Amino acid sequence: MFYIRIFQAKIKNIIIYTIKLCIFIINKIINKKTQNNILPSYSPSTIKKSNYMDNKITRLFNIQYPIVQAGMIWCSGWELAAAVSNAGGLGIIGSGSMYPDVLKEHIQKCKKATSKPFGVNVPMLYPDIDKHMDIIISEGVKIVFTSAGNPKTWTQKLKDHGITVVHVISNSKFAIKAEEAGVDAIVAEGFEAGGHNGREETTTLCLIPLIKQCVTIPVIAAGGIGTGRGMLAVMALGADGVQIGSRFVASDESSANIKFKDKIITSNDGDTLLSLKKLTPVRLLKNNFFDQVQQAESNCASSEELTKLLGRGRAKKGMFEGDIDEGELEIGQVAALIKEIKPAHAIVEEIIAEYKLAKEELNKSTW
Amino acid sequence: MFYIRIFQAKIKNIIIYTIKLCIFIINKIINKKTQNNILPSYSPSTIKKSNYMDNKITRLFNIQYPIVQAGMIWCSGWELAAAVSNAGGLGIIGSGSMYPDVLKEHIQKCKKATSKPFGVNVPMLYPDIDKHMDIIISEGVKIVFTSAGNPKTWTQKLKDHGITVVHVISNSKFAIKAEEAGVDAIVAEGFEAGGHNGREETTTLCLIPLIKQCVTIPVIAAGGIGTGRGMLAVMALGADGVQIGSRFVASDESSANIKFKDKIITSNDGDTLLSLKKLTPVRLLKNNFFDQVQQAESNCASSEELTKLLGRGRAKKGMFEGDIDEGELEIGQVAALIKEIKPAHAIVEEIIAEYKLAKEELNKSTW
Repeated sequence: MFYIRIFQAKIKNIIIYTIKLCIFIINKIINKKTQNNILPSYSPSTIKKSNYMDNKITRLFNIQYPIVQAGMIWCSGWELAAAVSNAGGLGIIGSGSMYPDVLKEHIQKCKKATSKPFGVNVPMLYPDIDKHMDIIISEGVKIVFTSAGNPKTWTQKLKDHGITVVHVISNSKFAIKAEEAGVDAIVAEGFEAGGHNGREETTTLCLIPLIKQCVTIPVIAAGGIGTGRGMLAVMALGADGVQIGSRFVASDESSANIKFKDKIITSNDGDTLLSLKKLTPVRLLKNNFFDQVQQAESNCASSEELTKLLGRGRAKKGMFEGDIDEGELEIGQVAALIKEIKPAHAIVEEIIAEYKLAKEELNKSTW
Repeated sequence: MFYIRIFQAKIKNIIIYTIKLCIFIINKIINKKTQNNILPSYSPSTIKKSNYMDNKITRLFNIQYPIVQAGMIWCSGWELAAAVSNAGGLGIIGSGSMYPDVLKEHIQKCKKATSKPFGVNVPMLYPDIDKHMDIIISEGVKIVFTSAGNPKTWTQKLKDHGITVVHVISNSKFAIKAEEAGVDAIVAEGFEAGGHNGREETTTLCLIPLIKQCVTIPVIAAGGIGTGRGMLAVMALGADGVQIGSRFVASDESSANIKFKDKIITSNDGDTLLSLKKLTPVRLLKNNFFDQVQQAESNCASSEELTKLLGRGRAKKGMFEGDIDEGELEIGQVAALIKEIKPAHAIVEEIIAEYKLAKEELNKSTW
């Protein structure tokens, strides 16, 4: 009986040990599964990681979010560019409405206002483009967005100075040309965008997949994007980043006149239309000037008559000086979704928060 | 020693049993985790579940995928509608190009060709609309899509006969009107869509969020969607389903002429344009007829002159009879992405597969 008791005790110990071992193994399995699936956001390192959106565009520009603020005439000076860059996006000074010395001043102020990367947009139709490019190079600007012209003209010279070059296009033909010219990325801008626009009228929803098919460099989607949902939609289409204009026009730091900003936040769907197609197609917010253009066009006005009607300084009059009746008000269709003037950093944060929320929502469905 | 041996044997048995029990428990845990996360497609019950996309639209129509095939003139008869319904989407007979007796025949053939739900699209401008509606009701059609007219006119009568009613809109004003009229869902159709189109020219990317803001009923996105990526993009915007036209025109079962189908699959970006805005805006594939219209418009042709130029039967001539030079070819911008004529079920499967792949890709980023 003594032996029996010893063996009973041993059996008990062995069983307890085996059960403990099994519980240990089970716990290990459960923990591993849980770590893989539920808890990544709880560790400080992953929190930091979740605020940096690592992709081709953030790496190209060395920024936090793949959000580029469009360089726009009369709206995007150094204050807006610096504010967007400080918020983790890429701010862009719109040089199209600046004399060379004004551009120089804006670049210098922007450098003081942010230690983060920022860029300059150069419409290549600008008469003083040589002077602009000289200033950009001598001031050590690191990123240039070119538009409205042949991407071959300036790309190599800018790249020789170590500048990252991005070209804006609205069709696959120019996307291929831009890649051949050696640009680092493309902005593919759809029909819904504000201001000057392509003649093909291809919308962002159709344009992004078309452009992704014909180039290998990163593609930044533009036109119709002003929210996190819009950003998620174009990322789903294959875009590597977004360029946002209209939403930033209605920001505190934009140099647009407050009357123009107020008109944007009270506009509805159908309040913009692509206009002046006989000259250069441009998306305008409807006002008295727009009505005059429509009237002239329905009366079959010639290019000369339209040029005369447009006159000089219409865009400055409307967007910068605030003559919202007689000025030219360039804005995108997405204006109808903008309901509040906010600081640029709040806009960036709102877009990122909505992007994440929309992605979570999309993932709620099991399919 | 005898007792010791017996106890040794018992210990051995007990240990083996305990280990087996633990292995059983471990397996149960692993299986449960795996079923939740990785392997749903392996069991027959989960295969069925994973192929059913449960949402507002699939529940409303009792279909497998939230994909509606647009009812189109000259392209979507009973063969296409039945094929799409049999593939798990919602097929729609386009009654706009049918005489009442032809519509009746198509409905009867569709009922024989599929046991699944299908619908009929009725443009309300159609002169024989009363006869069409009588046939729809008497033939026991369960789903009707109305377009091009006041949603109040027919909704109540159709609903009194137990018919699910969906109305097609292109701006928020009519979205609200449609909801007030009591329709069950809305198709929100953007500027990039083929055929007749809204005057606001709002693109799908901007339209869907605008419409989601002003109605509570389900919203089906249309215009520019022909791929799984496009479907994912509009679902990210908040759409509950998609309506796809152009992609199904280039299907085996579409009644479009093979010459029209061939022209679609060889078209590129910029090959369609919204035209005839003085009459009713319609998106056309560029051809000789289109050039004549553009020429007339640039010469400031009156509505009467354009109506005369359009003549009668242009759409039939082009889309059904295959006169691709002189006919009216209605197609969406997404045509540039269509490169192959396929059976409707292959199109549906391809869209679903690409949707899932694009969603996986989107989820590869941690943000």
